[in-house]
Amino acid sequence: VTARRQFANLGYEGTTIRGIAKEAGVDPALVHHFFGSKKELFASVTTFPFELEEAMPRIIEGPRSELGRRLAEWALGVLEDPESREAINGIVRAGVSDQGAADASRELVTAEVLVPIAKGIDADEPELRASLINAQLVGLIVARYIVAVEPLASLPAERVIDAISPSLQRYLTRPLRPSQSNTRKPHTT
Amino acid sequence: VTARRQFANLGYEGTTIRGIAKEAGVDPALVHHFFGSKKELFASVTTFPFELEEAMPRIIEGPRSELGRRLAEWALGVLEDPESREAINGIVRAGVSDQGAADASRELVTAEVLVPIAKGIDADEPELRASLINAQLVGLIVARYIVAVEPLASLPAERVIDAISPSLQRYLTRPLRPSQSNTRKPHTT
Repeated sequence: VTARRQFANLGYEGTTIRGIAKEAGVDPALVHHFFGSKKELFASVTTFPFELEEAMPRIIEGPRSELGRRLAEWALGVLEDPESREAINGIVRAGVSDQGAADASRELVTAEVLVPIAKGIDADEPELRASLINAQLVGLIVARYIVAVEPLASLPAERVIDAISPSLQRYLTRPLRPSQSNTRKPHTT
Repeated sequence: VTARRQFANLGYEGTTIRGIAKEAGVDPALVHHFFGSKKELFASVTTFPFELEEAMPRIIEGPRSELGRRLAEWALGVLEDPESREAINGIVRAGVSDQGAADASRELVTAEVLVPIAKGIDADEPELRASLINAQLVGLIVARYIVAVEPLASLPAERVIDAISPSLQRYLTRPLRPSQSNTRKPHTT
């Protein structure tokens, strides 16, 4: 808990094994012994506040047309909880400001929740879909909770779910390229 | 240019008027005289790299069904340019890590581009639509350019445009609440 709070308050760069050990009243060697490097400690504390493994089956179960809504409800449920929100804001802050933390946090939710969901529903390009959803959710975290862009910051959670569910649904289930019937000229990538 | 690079490299907190003046070889008082406070300097350098005023009419003109695509093309055009991308990454980094910079940067693109677009097409709740688009674009910046979540980070720009255009289109033009015909129970917000 001390470690999680220090990462959240001080950022990845500002947090040291020594500082965590001091506040917790233990020997730094003990922290090293149990948790390994700072990067490993960061990875272990940032997986604490919610059960990633439980999320995936709960989101996949149910009508396919409401996948995006179930994912949005799960995400808002996590983010509206003060404790897990604090931890997640810390992860995003650290990931944005520091390459070491970016390496550690990059794969967390994407690899453990979003890719399994996309694979679980047999979507094409599951990793790309997961990273697009990651982008949508990280943007929501930054805009609503960290930078506090209004009126999104004070919108009731239910309306946020209404607003982003169709985007998540599309990133999960719809084609990611324009359809052939589109009249625009073909893109050369 | 010095100021913009220092904000981008050192972050808002790490950048000082004195440091900028030193690197530029001028008296700090001169920087103060021309640009005012650090916050004002930040605001002025972060508006430099692209012409915000020109974006709005170019995006609004044309078929309404392709508003989202024109907005995505504009955003990717800005973000794929190394100079403006560096500046924008600096704004986002600073906004995420520091409240002063968040205050200064929060309204920038939202107020000067996104709200005018939403108002220009007579959308309901233009400020909310603008802040939802802000969230989508900031998330793209963090995931693709700052944290580098794959495969989004190395996806060709054209495919990114294909992937996010429908979301932007929806945030601009479609209802933000579920339709009445939706069979789910009504939400109490």
